[in-house]
Formats: sequence, C-alpha cells, structure tokens
Amino acid sequence: MTPEPNSSSPIRDQLAALHREFSEIHDGTVATYIPELGKADPDWFGICVVTTNGGVYEVGDSRQEFTIQSLSKPFVYGLALEDHGRAEVLAKVGVEPTGDAFNSISLDPVTGCPRNPMINAGAIASTGLVEGHTADARIRRILEMFAHYAGRDLAIDEQVYVSESATGHRNRAIGHMLRNFGILTDDPMPVVETYFQQCSILGHCRDLATMAATLANRGVNPLTGQQAIRGEYVESVLGVMGTCGMYDYAGEWLYDVGMPAKSGVSGGVIAVLPGQLGIGVFSPRLDAKGNSVRGIRVCSALSRRWDLHLFNRPGIGRAAIRLRLNAAEFNSSRVRSPAESEVLREHGRAIQVFQLQGNFLFATAELIVRELTELTGLESLILDFRHVLSINESAAHLFHDILIRLHAAGVAVLFTGVENAASLRRLMRARLGARFEEIFRTFDDPDPALEWCEERLLARLLPEIPDVSIAVTQYALLDGLSREEVATVQSLFQRRTYEPGESIIRVGEPARELFFLSRGLVSVFLPLEGGAQKRLATFSPGMVFGEMAVLDRAPRSASITADTPVSCDLVSLPRLTALGVTHPKIKIRLLENLSLDLCRKLRKANREIALLV
Amino acid sequence: MTPEPNSSSPIRDQLAALHREFSEIHDGTVATYIPELGKADPDWFGICVVTTNGGVYEVGDSRQEFTIQSLSKPFVYGLALEDHGRAEVLAKVGVEPTGDAFNSISLDPVTGCPRNPMINAGAIASTGLVEGHTADARIRRILEMFAHYAGRDLAIDEQVYVSESATGHRNRAIGHMLRNFGILTDDPMPVVETYFQQCSILGHCRDLATMAATLANRGVNPLTGQQAIRGEYVESVLGVMGTCGMYDYAGEWLYDVGMPAKSGVSGGVIAVLPGQLGIGVFSPRLDAKGNSVRGIRVCSALSRRWDLHLFNRPGIGRAAIRLRLNAAEFNSSRVRSPAESEVLREHGRAIQVFQLQGNFLFATAELIVRELTELTGLESLILDFRHVLSINESAAHLFHDILIRLHAAGVAVLFTGVENAASLRRLMRARLGARFEEIFRTFDDPDPALEWCEERLLARLLPEIPDVSIAVTQYALLDGLSREEVATVQSLFQRRTYEPGESIIRVGEPARELFFLSRGLVSVFLPLEGGAQKRLATFSPGMVFGEMAVLDRAPRSASITADTPVSCDLVSLPRLTALGVTHPKIKIRLLENLSLDLCRKLRKANREIALLV
Repeated sequence: MTPEPNSSSPIRDQLAALHREFSEIHDGTVATYIPELGKADPDWFGICVVTTNGGVYEVGDSRQEFTIQSLSKPFVYGLALEDHGRAEVLAKVGVEPTGDAFNSISLDPVTGCPRNPMINAGAIASTGLVEGHTADARIRRILEMFAHYAGRDLAIDEQVYVSESATGHRNRAIGHMLRNFGILTDDPMPVVETYFQQCSILGHCRDLATMAATLANRGVNPLTGQQAIRGEYVESVLGVMGTCGMYDYAGEWLYDVGMPAKSGVSGGVIAVLPGQLGIGVFSPRLDAKGNSVRGIRVCSALSRRWDLHLFNRPGIGRAAIRLRLNAAEFNSSRVRSPAESEVLREHGRAIQVFQLQGNFLFATAELIVRELTELTGLESLILDFRHVLSINESAAHLFHDILIRLHAAGVAVLFTGVENAASLRRLMRARLGARFEEIFRTFDDPDPALEWCEERLLARLLPEIPDVSIAVTQYALLDGLSREEVATVQSLFQRRTYEPGESIIRVGEPARELFFLSRGLVSVFLPLEGGAQKRLATFSPGMVFGEMAVLDRAPRSASITADTPVSCDLVSLPRLTALGVTHPKIKIRLLENLSLDLCRKLRKANREIALLV
Repeated sequence: MTPEPNSSSPIRDQLAALHREFSEIHDGTVATYIPELGKADPDWFGICVVTTNGGVYEVGDSRQEFTIQSLSKPFVYGLALEDHGRAEVLAKVGVEPTGDAFNSISLDPVTGCPRNPMINAGAIASTGLVEGHTADARIRRILEMFAHYAGRDLAIDEQVYVSESATGHRNRAIGHMLRNFGILTDDPMPVVETYFQQCSILGHCRDLATMAATLANRGVNPLTGQQAIRGEYVESVLGVMGTCGMYDYAGEWLYDVGMPAKSGVSGGVIAVLPGQLGIGVFSPRLDAKGNSVRGIRVCSALSRRWDLHLFNRPGIGRAAIRLRLNAAEFNSSRVRSPAESEVLREHGRAIQVFQLQGNFLFATAELIVRELTELTGLESLILDFRHVLSINESAAHLFHDILIRLHAAGVAVLFTGVENAASLRRLMRARLGARFEEIFRTFDDPDPALEWCEERLLARLLPEIPDVSIAVTQYALLDGLSREEVATVQSLFQRRTYEPGESIIRVGEPARELFFLSRGLVSVFLPLEGGAQKRLATFSPGMVFGEMAVLDRAPRSASITADTPVSCDLVSLPRLTALGVTHPKIKIRLLENLSLDLCRKLRKANREIALLV
C-alpha cells in the first residue's frame, strides 16, 4: 500500500521541475580560454542537493564529469589553514573582497599579499602553503583531501592539465610576483604546476554537492562519515566564500541567495547552507563575470523556494527542552509506600528533570541556564542529555557555571546520558579539577538518577526506617484484617533470606509462591537481548511481589534479585488456594487490597503517560 | 537552598569579565566632526546581549544614551523595503560593498545609484523612500518603527540634530546629486533633514541589543512581541549589514566575527546572530575606519568564546523528530480486548506516529519526508505538530507533497496539533482545493487520532462485532466460572441503558455499583480546570468499569459518559458484598480476574512509559 522504497521523492520532483524550467535558458557562453574547456557541451545541466542528514537528490547530467577549476580554491585554502593555522595563513593571504576579475593579480601594494584566496594569486599562495616535500607529495595530499570531501577518489584530467600548463603564463607571472614579495618562499614554478593540477581535478555535480554538504556538516562528509577538514576551519573557508566566492558579485549574491558559494569557469557552482545542506550545479554557459548562468539561477531559485537564506532563521524558541518533569508528577520505577508517595506528591517539585535535546549552542544553553537560575526551592536537578546531538564549548561552559552555582547552593545536579558528550565531560574535568568526581555526578540512565533524588528528599522528610524486618501488620496487603485473620495469614508464611545480588525469582520458572517483602530492597528486571537487563521496578518492605504469575499460573515473566540483605515471607500456591476455601473472607480481602493497589498504580502510570506524550 | 530569582547569571558574569578585560583598552579617538559628539566621555563602555528567547544581559554603561548615527541606516532601509518592495528599492540603491569610507559619495557612474544603503548616499536615498506626505510624517513613521524595535519610545537629541544640520554640507551635496540622478524625486533638502534627525535619535546599549535581537527574531521584538519589520525583509536588511555594515572592514569582519553587523560614529555597534541573539556595544573611541575599537573587540571575543560564527553550525541531525511510535508498542487510551490487543501487537507497525518538534525548514522536513518515503507496509500515519514552533513555506510544501503521495497509496495521514500551524493549513487549503476537507484530516489531540487508526486496522483484520448486547459469558471478569456460577452472577444484574452523550457516572458521586458493559462504548473523563475534560480511557463491550470506587468505597474520581447507545449490567455494592458471603468462590474468581487484568494493563503502561521517557 505504500510507495516502493527508494522510489522518487517529492524533493527530487521539485528539482526535476526546476531543471526543466531552467533548461530553457541558453544565455552565456562556454569558457574557451583553454581549448579543452571549449569542448564542453553547452547544454550539459546537472543539479544535486546533499543534506547533512545524508539525503541525496540529483537530476539531469549530475554524473557528467568536468574539471573543477576554481572550485578547488576554497578546499585547498582549508588545507593550508589546517597545515599552518589561521594567523600564519592570514599573514600571507587576505580575506577582503576585490571588485576585480578572477584572474587579476590584486596584491596588496605594500605587503604583496593577495587580497583573498579566491582570486588566482591567493589561490596559488594557498597551494604554496600546503605541506609536502615535493610537488608530487603536495598534489597527493590535495587529492586525498578531495577524496574525503567527495567520498570517492577523484582523478586529474591530464589533457586539461597539459593545456592549462601550456597556456598559464599569467599564473606563472603571478607565481613570480608572489615569490618576489616572499609570499612563496621557494621556486614558485612547481607550486603553479600543482595549482594547474588541482584545477584539472575531475568531479561531477554529485561530488560538488557532497563536498558542499561536508562543509555544511562541519567538515564531516555526511555520506561516509569521514572528516575532510577540521571543524574549526570550516567557518574560515565559508567566510571567504561568503564575501569572495562569486567574484565581484559577492554583495548581490549574499543579499539574494544568502549562502557562501563558489563558482568555477568550467560551469560548476557550489553553495553551502551551514548545518543543513550543500548544493552543486553544473552548466557550462557563463555570464560576463565568469559565473555559470544556470548555476546562479538555480541557487537563487532554490534559496527563494526552499527558504535557504542564511539570514532568514526562525527563533530557536524552547526547542532545546524536550520535556520538563518534577517528582511530584513523575517518579522513578521504585515502587513507593503510600506515605512515601504522599511526600513525593507534596514536595516532589524540589526535584526537577530537564530532558534536553538537539544541538547545544550558546543560545540554547542560555535558555536552560536562565530557567535554572529562576527556579526556587530546588533540591535536586537532573539534566538528561540522552537526546542531545552536540554541545559546543560555550554551552559546556555555561553548564559548568550553573553546576558550580547550584552545587554551592546545596542543589545536587545529576547528569544522565552524557556518555557521548565528550566535550562536556572534558570541560568539566578540566574546570573542576580534583572536585570533578564529587561534583560532576553522572548516571547512565535517568531512572536510577531520579530514584537517587527521591531517596534524598525522603531521607530529609521521613523518619529513617531501621533496617530490620517489619511487623506482619505492616504488610499493605493485610490492611483491614483483624488480628486473628493476620495471625491466620502469618501461619502460612515461610521465612526466607537472601544475600545482596542473590536471585529470588528467575524468568521462566514456574510460579510457586507469593512474596511478602519484610526487609531490604528487591528489583524486578527484564532480560534484554545481548545479556543486558532493564529494571522495571524496585520494591521496599511492606510490599508484595510475584503476584502476577500466581494469578495467571504462568511461568515467571521477569527476574527478581535482592539489592540488599533481604527477608521475605513466602506463601505457597497450594496454601494460597486452600485459604480461599478455609478463610474465603481473608482471601477476598487480600484480593481487594491487591486490586486497589493495582488500580492506583495504573492510574498513576496513565497520568505519567499523559505527561510524556 | 537555591539562588534568589533574578540574581546574577553566569552569562552576566562572563560579560562582566569581558567588560573588565576590555576596559583596559584606550586606543582610538572620539569622533568630533560635530562638536556635540566630542562631548562624549571616551571611557563610556556598555555591553548588552538580548536573546530571541527574551534573555537580557547587560553590563557597564548599558543605559547611557547616545545618538545612534549610522546605526539608523539598516533599520530605515528596512522601512524603505516595506514601503516599496525589494525590486523597486534595488533599482535605486545597490547592495555591493565599496572599499570607500562611510561618507564617500560612491554613486554608480552610469545610473547614479548609491552602491549600498550603508554609505551616506545610500542611506539618504533610503530615507527618501520612506513613505510620508511631509518630512514630519516621515520622521514620525521612523520613530514609530524604532519604538517597535527598541520596545520603548526613542527621542531625538535636538542639539545633535541642529549641530548635524549646521555642518552637514557634504550630505546636502549628496542629496542634490541624488536628485540630479533622479534617485530622489522631490526637493532633496527635507529628506536630508530627516536623515539628520534619524541619526540624532537617542538610544542606549540595551536598545541596540534589543533592536539587533528583533532582527535575529525575524522582525519580532523578543521582549514585547511586537513586529518591527515584516519577516520577509529581515534577510535583506541583514544581507546589506553582512557585506557593507562595517565599512571597508566587511571581509575580515565576516571572516572573523561571522555575524551581520553595523557600527555608528558615536561608538555603537550591533551584531545579529539570526535565530539566536543580538549584541549591542557602546564605546565612543573609534579606529581609523570609524568603528568602535572596543565594540569590534567585544564582538570578536564574544563570537570566538560563545561560538557565534554564523558559518559554524552543527548539522541539524534528527532533532526534528521528538519521538517515533507505532501501534505495536504504544496505543490510544481505548481499552482493548485481548483479541484486539493481539492484533495491534502483531500488525500495529502499520500505524506510525511521528511526533515532530522545533522549527520546520526545508532541511528538517526533508528528513521526515525521506523517512516516510522509505517506510513500507504503512496503513495510517499520524504527524503530530504539537511541539512544532514554526513551519516555513518550503517545509509546508513538502508536507503537502508527501500527503498527496501517501493518500494516493491508500495511506491515511492524520495531522494533530496543527491549530497553531496557520501556514501549513493555509498552504494545504490552497493546494488541495476541494479535496481539502477529505484529505487534510486533523485531530486536536493525538490520542483520538491514534484510536481512529487502530479502529481502521482492527476493522480490516477482525470480524465486525454487531452492535447488540453481548452474552454474559463474554464478560472477561467471569472467565473461568462454571455455567451455574455465571447464572448466579447474572441473577445479581440490573440492566440499564443510556443514550449517546448521557452521563453514567459523575465525579464525586458515592460509588453504588459495578458496571459490566454489554453494548456500546463509554469514555472516562477527568474534569480539568476551566470546564474542559480529558479522556482517560474508552471501554467496549465485555469490559467492566467503576471498580475502583467500589474497591476503596470512595466517591467517584472520574466521570463516565456513553459515547454510543449503551447497555450495562449493574451489580449493586450490597449484592457484591453479599456474594462474598454466599458464593465466596465466585467472588474470589472475579477478584482474581480483575487483578490479573489490572496487572497486565499496568505492565503495558510501564512499557509505554519506558518508551516515552
């Protein structure tokens, strides 16, 4: 009844419609400054969009290869940044746009620095900054980098390279000028050759979109998971693309399209929407400024139709908080006595749970910190990170700061689901030093964390229960029985004790007894695949367990283990059956008490579900 | 035990530390081109940050007023856009950066258009585009706009205005040049006077940050909720700020700070991080380019320390999906018979629930559409929008496209929580036309939506139950009783019928009977404050209700109403009590069946809670 998997998508359909629409445009001319480029079919036209979530949409000649030309510039600039850091690179290549054409020399008259890395002079200087003992080693590193960006090995078109090299006198002149100013420090000619090679790398539209999406995804190729450039340098690569990527069209481009972009003389265009997606377009006909005519039109149309303008962002709102709970309305799987339940209902607001989600940046962490700062009467706080995708440095700092404040005010702060939040853990360890273990309390699972907070609250508000066996009159199931009736039930009891960790009930065993818990704590576990187990409930003295299998005479459906030294009063199934015959009034009372208890628990569970959905 | 509300925040502390650090910088000089500006205390220094969530953090001289000067330019440009639209404004004022100083004339040699609205010529042209029959009307509209941006009325400093006007010969020359080229169409002198007035508007740091945050929040002041500029023009205002806002420092600014920004000669700087926050800094000492020295340093430091660079965004990941459920693991509050439960457990994956969250843009909707396109065996789909903050046009389009596809494939798509998703509803109505009512199925609440899907599945897989009273042997509570025992219970029954909508049990009534449902559907409601009520459960024939109050002899805690024509068999409390004496074995069996049923429901509820948390 559903569409086939991998069938066409509405997004691909939208792109196909755009492709049809813009196929009608025949303005512009194919670059011919080297003969090889002139061989391109002017009607080639491909579009591809790759999202940071790994969605790929391509139409038209999206697998037609062409030499990437100037599209290589931002990527090689990124490699130079990785090799030398921002300061050193900035000392050699500026970042100011020029009103000049792509092949202008545009060196600063005083320092000789190229104005930016997107003009040829800046690009050649960037290539010169790529580490490598030989020209061969340098181009190998460049090709390796492009393989990470594109997710496949890209080759050099030798014919185009030879043609570039044979006609590249202007670029050789630039190389010598750069050597003259000391921007290039060795023989500039091998660097210029490497530059010709990088321009002659063959890629197709899907490669372009993947490369752009890798920049959008902080340097991680969303299709392969490979890191193509360190995340910290992505903003610099996009920064120069933002102001210098479209030659002297930068202002209008950022105004109209609103994405960092780069075009190449062979007809390729890439555009990057940080965090979201990359676009690659290929159409060889160029306008007077050297940008692909259809490439610009497609990016502009997509920006408008898909609302991709970088400056047009909705407010982040409260989307960072998935759920806020407190222990007055939601509790751990520790089963509580009526007295305990009453205390939690009344004072549980002192325990707050913030379930966080998404990417934590300054502005998302700010909201959490502000809400926490404004809370009153807080005793324990659980910050649950299981649904958090990333935490940046500034957000981690804010979590540290609020932790310190709350800790100083006597609030226990528990972190759950931080196994994968390496940046948070690292910052906490660095900032908290010796107090790290004491202050940065972590729990794998929010359920025991919540129990810990509940216990803390109950310990403060309820008298301590001595760790001895309780009186039989304290069994909730015996409520309402006369002294004689209690004695009758007691005569059926068999006392059994367990060591901490000892198994009381195992999954699959036949049900032989009902258990009254007299001393200690027991937990119910469900075995999961792979040997792990999930806690379903924890019981404390006065409660009964093992009743379900007794009622339906089925094998045990969960395991029960002693958490502490445990004493139980067991009633065997035959004795329980006999009780219905000899003392039906008692049996009826037990069952009524049991039903009522189950009713109440079911109501609470349903209230909790309503809170969570 | 917790910090006082409104006590200092860690974010304010970080700003205070930054303020102390940069107070040490004494570079630069106060502008003196008009005498009034020269009166500023060079040591004034304020910082304010306002988030789109309404957080406000201010330190130093954040309430010291000063004239906003060039900071007025982007806002007035925005008003010109609102008055004339993008195309008409672009025909008169360009958007390309110039390498020239702020007061350069910079008109296009052919068209006479100012290069961009951030230089004086472009700003005066923008002021000329503000609608208003008189100069007075025009400045009133400008002041009204600023009041929306700042959240308070801003005044004009008359002394500064007079001083600007007395010395503004260059700007008058610009005015006449603009008139010469037909960019201004009337007497240019009143426009230049209005321009002097807008530059003389008094604001402080907190105003600047609020204005910046309003741009970050798509034109809605996050502190007052007032719309200061239509959302569609915000990207254009930020676009010119991005490339032209910091005079000839644009490339380095976008590279280093990565936020659209604007500075003014009196020492103010604003920076905007779209979707997140606005920054305002005030410090009158300027560098050679006319930008506040400390202003630039503060923005640069905040960008670095708080990771505010616009091009440095983490991938959006799967944050758009709050929860995915299916009816094999999670069900509506319709209580199911064992046979129905079994069918749902086995086939419930054909019913999928996507709980969405946050802002829906192209890239977030893409993920949902892709997952939906890849699903197989889907019969019904619930898209729950209750946690969605906004849906842009492109996302709404994608939801439309996927709806059409799934509908054509026979999948029922139900939308819940779309009351506030006006844009989605509007687009669906426009695109679906006459089929809108049929195809765009909406439910206020996901619970009845899920029930609807379950009913559809069960109708397909289970034989239809005729709408007649069932046989008493079909009451689940009587399972395991002999024919004679069933007859005994039956002798206690009193038949009662109800019309649809008729009340069966009211909150607060004493519990007098246990109800066996023989025909029809009944729902349990909890009254909420304000007269509304929440459905807790719906029962179908064969089930029992009203047992809890019978067990604990307390007044009814919820209301029960007939959804359809209903027949019930009632057992009064006295008869039920008597049954324990006359036929204890039957009573025990009833209670065992009840306990077992409650046990199973409790387990299912606990499994659902574990899914949801």
